[in-house]
Amino acid sequence: MIDLKDKYRSVRERSEDICATLKTEDYVVQPVVDVSPPKWHLGHTSWFFETFILQHHLTGYSIFNPSYPFVFNSYYESLGARVIRTNRGNLSRPTVEEVYEYRLHVDAAMDRLLSQPISKEVRTLAILGLNHEEQHQELLATDIKYILGHNPLFPTYTEIANPLSGEIFTDEFITIKDGIYDIGYDSEGFCFDNELNRHTVFLPAFKIAKGLITNGQYVEFMKDGGYQKHEYWHAEGLDWIKNNHINSPLYWHWINGRWHYYSSAGVQPLKLDEPVAHVSYYEASAFAAWKGMRLPTEFEWEVASSRFTWGERWEWTGSAYLPYPGYVRAAGAIGEYNGKFMVNQMVLRGASIVTPPEHSRPSYRNFFHPHLRWQHTGIRLAQNTN
Amino acid sequence: MIDLKDKYRSVRERSEDICATLKTEDYVVQPVVDVSPPKWHLGHTSWFFETFILQHHLTGYSIFNPSYPFVFNSYYESLGARVIRTNRGNLSRPTVEEVYEYRLHVDAAMDRLLSQPISKEVRTLAILGLNHEEQHQELLATDIKYILGHNPLFPTYTEIANPLSGEIFTDEFITIKDGIYDIGYDSEGFCFDNELNRHTVFLPAFKIAKGLITNGQYVEFMKDGGYQKHEYWHAEGLDWIKNNHINSPLYWHWINGRWHYYSSAGVQPLKLDEPVAHVSYYEASAFAAWKGMRLPTEFEWEVASSRFTWGERWEWTGSAYLPYPGYVRAAGAIGEYNGKFMVNQMVLRGASIVTPPEHSRPSYRNFFHPHLRWQHTGIRLAQNTN
Amino acid sequence: MIDLKDKYRSVRERSEDICATLKTEDYVVQPVVDVSPPKWHLGHTSWFFETFILQHHLTGYSIFNPSYPFVFNSYYESLGARVIRTNRGNLSRPTVEEVYEYRLHVDAAMDRLLSQPISKEVRTLAILGLNHEEQHQELLATDIKYILGHNPLFPTYTEIANPLSGEIFTDEFITIKDGIYDIGYDSEGFCFDNELNRHTVFLPAFKIAKGLITNGQYVEFMKDGGYQKHEYWHAEGLDWIKNNHINSPLYWHWINGRWHYYSSAGVQPLKLDEPVAHVSYYEASAFAAWKGMRLPTEFEWEVASSRFTWGERWEWTGSAYLPYPGYVRAAGAIGEYNGKFMVNQMVLRGASIVTPPEHSRPSYRNFFHPHLRWQHTGIRLAQNTN
Amino acid sequence: MIDLKDKYRSVRERSEDICATLKTEDYVVQPVVDVSPPKWHLGHTSWFFETFILQHHLTGYSIFNPSYPFVFNSYYESLGARVIRTNRGNLSRPTVEEVYEYRLHVDAAMDRLLSQPISKEVRTLAILGLNHEEQHQELLATDIKYILGHNPLFPTYTEIANPLSGEIFTDEFITIKDGIYDIGYDSEGFCFDNELNRHTVFLPAFKIAKGLITNGQYVEFMKDGGYQKHEYWHAEGLDWIKNNHINSPLYWHWINGRWHYYSSAGVQPLKLDEPVAHVSYYEASAFAAWKGMRLPTEFEWEVASSRFTWGERWEWTGSAYLPYPGYVRAAGAIGEYNGKFMVNQMVLRGASIVTPPEHSRPSYRNFFHPHLRWQHTGIRLAQNTN
Repeated sequence: MIDLKDKYRSVRERSEDICATLKTEDYVVQPVVDVSPPKWHLGHTSWFFETFILQHHLTGYSIFNPSYPFVFNSYYESLGARVIRTNRGNLSRPTVEEVYEYRLHVDAAMDRLLSQPISKEVRTLAILGLNHEEQHQELLATDIKYILGHNPLFPTYTEIANPLSGEIFTDEFITIKDGIYDIGYDSEGFCFDNELNRHTVFLPAFKIAKGLITNGQYVEFMKDGGYQKHEYWHAEGLDWIKNNHINSPLYWHWINGRWHYYSSAGVQPLKLDEPVAHVSYYEASAFAAWKGMRLPTEFEWEVASSRFTWGERWEWTGSAYLPYPGYVRAAGAIGEYNGKFMVNQMVLRGASIVTPPEHSRPSYRNFFHPHLRWQHTGIRLAQNTN
Repeated sequence: MIDLKDKYRSVRERSEDICATLKTEDYVVQPVVDVSPPKWHLGHTSWFFETFILQHHLTGYSIFNPSYPFVFNSYYESLGARVIRTNRGNLSRPTVEEVYEYRLHVDAAMDRLLSQPISKEVRTLAILGLNHEEQHQELLATDIKYILGHNPLFPTYTEIANPLSGEIFTDEFITIKDGIYDIGYDSEGFCFDNELNRHTVFLPAFKIAKGLITNGQYVEFMKDGGYQKHEYWHAEGLDWIKNNHINSPLYWHWINGRWHYYSSAGVQPLKLDEPVAHVSYYEASAFAAWKGMRLPTEFEWEVASSRFTWGERWEWTGSAYLPYPGYVRAAGAIGEYNGKFMVNQMVLRGASIVTPPEHSRPSYRNFFHPHLRWQHTGIRLAQNTN
Repeated sequence: MIDLKDKYRSVRERSEDICATLKTEDYVVQPVVDVSPPKWHLGHTSWFFETFILQHHLTGYSIFNPSYPFVFNSYYESLGARVIRTNRGNLSRPTVEEVYEYRLHVDAAMDRLLSQPISKEVRTLAILGLNHEEQHQELLATDIKYILGHNPLFPTYTEIANPLSGEIFTDEFITIKDGIYDIGYDSEGFCFDNELNRHTVFLPAFKIAKGLITNGQYVEFMKDGGYQKHEYWHAEGLDWIKNNHINSPLYWHWINGRWHYYSSAGVQPLKLDEPVAHVSYYEASAFAAWKGMRLPTEFEWEVASSRFTWGERWEWTGSAYLPYPGYVRAAGAIGEYNGKFMVNQMVLRGASIVTPPEHSRPSYRNFFHPHLRWQHTGIRLAQNTN
Repeated sequence: MIDLKDKYRSVRERSEDICATLKTEDYVVQPVVDVSPPKWHLGHTSWFFETFILQHHLTGYSIFNPSYPFVFNSYYESLGARVIRTNRGNLSRPTVEEVYEYRLHVDAAMDRLLSQPISKEVRTLAILGLNHEEQHQELLATDIKYILGHNPLFPTYTEIANPLSGEIFTDEFITIKDGIYDIGYDSEGFCFDNELNRHTVFLPAFKIAKGLITNGQYVEFMKDGGYQKHEYWHAEGLDWIKNNHINSPLYWHWINGRWHYYSSAGVQPLKLDEPVAHVSYYEASAFAAWKGMRLPTEFEWEVASSRFTWGERWEWTGSAYLPYPGYVRAAGAIGEYNGKFMVNQMVLRGASIVTPPEHSRPSYRNFFHPHLRWQHTGIRLAQNTN
């Protein structure tokens, strides 16, 4: 069994490490509704421990500041009024320093709690809180990229852009035959409720790519007029690219006759052999249609996932985010975690270069609205086998 | 083989029959973007025959009016510019009389064409055109209901409201055991491309209600504060009811201390034992959650459909509208029919009181965005079997 | 003293004459919020007589339909709930025929009332009602032009476009010397409360053009890049032309290499020597700036108006619509007529080709928001004299 | 003649003094479009000197950062592309520290320039730049109040709220007789172009209040249902209060059964004898109507201003913001300063508690859209004399 105190400390530290190179100002802004200010993430993840654990399970715990729940509640209807999402970037206070003090306060209390014998319930909640914080670490990283990458000064986040490793370009496809397969989490450790219950699906035979689509391949799509040819697009996707003047992945810039992109090390010439990132579901789907193929379903992906490398791009699937058979929302505020978002979103599988390692597992289901692309979203192709 | 000339005549007549009691003014307005003016439906369905068949396959055919394609194209990107959807209700011309003349012109030409030996392609297109018109007949009926039912004078459409027959209230559930089932259309006649290909799915064991939820049962949900309790709702559903001040199905009015509803015969006291209609997916899903159950998937529905009566309410399923395995869009404008809408919509199964009989088949897939409810949408419950 | 019965009859007939060539469908639509459906104008002007006069002053009068006040109240807060303005075009009922029956009902009752000796109050209200209807006649004419002129079929309203007569092109300016002048209505007959009280202003010396700006002169402005040069525009005007892609007056179309415009007789080549019409205040003001001049104030216009011909174009002035000294709103619903609109609008002086003759007087103040241009708005220049 | 170097230093210091108690985060946010982040004000006022003076008139001056003009240009079309206004609060960079470095860079260069003999043009531009910065000081103060006063933690800005002094409550009215009066700036020193040219107006006799309306008087209006009675309101004002749920001045809070307000020292019980502040033109006008009076015109205010104390509240007048006779926009970017805003705004006269002393003069014209109220706007009544 993992040592919770150690685990707690390392997860909490990782959130702060992600922010290590930020200026105070970078913690504050919210340039688009889906992006939250970094200081909000740091406060919200602390509020989660305070609200779900410390208030109920640590004798003598005193709330750090009675106004903070209003500021740091994200979407829990059960837990009262809160700052509306679009207002997060309008709040200069609490200051970054105060948020770090809040973290210290919560951490000290969690340390006291975890130094005692704890009930199974507290253990479960603490593990959920840590997994919750790890999810926010991914958002923290992508939100910071958005904040810096949409600033006209294009500040750098690190000296050197994350090097990509595993997913070498290949044209190969893996063939999976039709049959009955099991889907969903089946181990002992933590998983989210949306990965349960393990259940059976029937899959027709299919082929799935060993490699991800590269920037170079995506440029071919663009050169071939992919953004102008309606036949590859969903009707809503077409509206989206027209209304938002989209003609390339997010963070791409056409400078002096060639494509560049904003990475954590600043604006750089596009690397053609890297996997494409920051495309919407609409773009991923249109690209697949242009290739005469399709995106895999999340079940196909899960079944085939042991046969290719993955982990640096979240991969759009052709599956809508829906409950697995037998899924039931938990009672109370914890039940608001996943189930209420199961409409109008598409499932992503895999993991990305900013995903905490513990969140890299074949059954993990991420989900976003089809137009969103500030995550490190990529494309893997599939096709039917006849 | 059906006689196409007869079939053509009867389908075309049915569209006009639906409009028989309308005043000229009723043909013109578009009170909400999803509702089209009746005269637009009458013109658009004629344009479909003119554009896809007559122009290419009837020698000497002359287009009725060169401006009409701009007016009556719905969403076919392949076929050029068109009046934007929100503008349909801003057009007083062509007049209703001119639209009927257009229909006569197209009908005469189709009669000439169908009096000759025709190719398989023309036959296929003509049958598609008729099925297309039958789909619009359903929209025509529900759009008329919306136009009249949102007028402060609440005009009647018929003397007597459609009597409902088949679906008697019952608490019974049917049990279906787990296993491999076939899904999709498997007969000789016409079906839409989204019902193909017939394919295998695995279903866990489940129970499904023999009857639909009644108005009376829905009133219980309302009385129990169903619209106020966030735990039954999707997050987007909750936003929708709050922003739109929704607290009952569409067409319901609280008058003198009791619920009434607008029907084709005007405003009437609510009949508690009728199946509830005009609820959104969000409401259907929240109702099911309140009952501790869920909506069936479209596959469960199709597998069980021979064991209950259906046909007076479109029934929301818990399935997102996605392509079946092996689905490929047809080339050209015809390919824009279904595939480009396969995102962000939920599947409805069954048929409603205004569905043309030919469109009542177990494999038929209708689909709408989850907030829409101007169709005769109802609720059937399902649950897992443990 | 005018014979009120005769006057009533002739004014009411004129409204119907304006609609003589309309199709039923043309009465129904509202292609933009500022335009009301013709049948709404016909009903609303009748409701005015019913509500302000017949209900209170004709013994035994029975309201035609108790739902009509909800439908036909325009903006009178004192008089209860009403259809919101944007919904007027969503109402197919009452039908055009029913609205004409409503007019007959009201006319018969007014005839009965005016056949009796009437109080001064009733006389005053009846005259206000007729002037109110005459104002709506102007809107009726311009709303019809908008409805037909924005239809892709460009239907004609009359066989022959209104010929313009009086305002011959001239470059001459009239010089008015500085001094004390009287402003406001000073006769016996009817005027609106916003023309009262007659009062004194001091005007610096100025020059004002004898003629209006022609289409030809406006084309010169366009050719010189007038719509692209920010220095001529108000900041809000610049936003307006950019957001709405405005680059010519309303109803102008560039067809086959030359400018055309939609007139009541259909689309025609632009007549260069006609006074320009259908420009916004922003455009009028930018044109004047391009000429190194300015628009006259409403006081300058009134003082000089006896020395030039006018009456075919409403003329934008540089004056904001504000109360005259001593202006007080009347008590009750009548008090809502003018005063509550005295913010954010600009004054127009003169009259247009569709203004009822009685509304052509030097003291008449019309007013619109600066971006509106569906009235026959034109441009007269003024400048300071040094 | 003032010493420009001293003046420059003291004005620039004052901007920084205003920010002395801010946290870094407070410099960054833009909670509403009209409010700019404090660091933007500090940068923009520096950019003004750099762009209009240093680049052209200081030999060897090098621009601090070539990206800054894009970030700090406010609305000068002549000077190229710029961050759109709504994005100012989305920019974490340049940091506050970098903005202060920018100020140092500009200040050092201005010091070099002003140590040399300078041309009349440079002197004029420098004085304009200082007056421009003083205008921004007022906005800086009110924007900070908005940022802190809309934060759920209600942070304080100073230890003690600004004490008000001069404008004691009084019911007295001053009578001014009708006649010819001169309006506009008539001294040697600096004024804005909108205060020129001095010109003659005729004013009817009027009375104007010696004192401003107090919080206590405003509470009476509220208690009497002032916000609910449509007859006091402009139609657009009524829409504004309904759509925005306005029922009190900005910054007022109903807590524990009494009114409080947010001041620079935090939330405090309302002081009934202080002049009311933070009302919109709509509210000021409605209040006056409730009193059976009106707001003074800007000319009445100017003529009477020597006979009452003023300077702690900007006072709404009943005058629209329009050019004075003979007003001409200057050529080039400087010409964008005032003229292009002369539409849809109302004039304020006086000065407020955060106005730099040099901007307190009887001819000074401030202007805002009628719904805005984050300035220290107050109410003085006037009435006609019969």
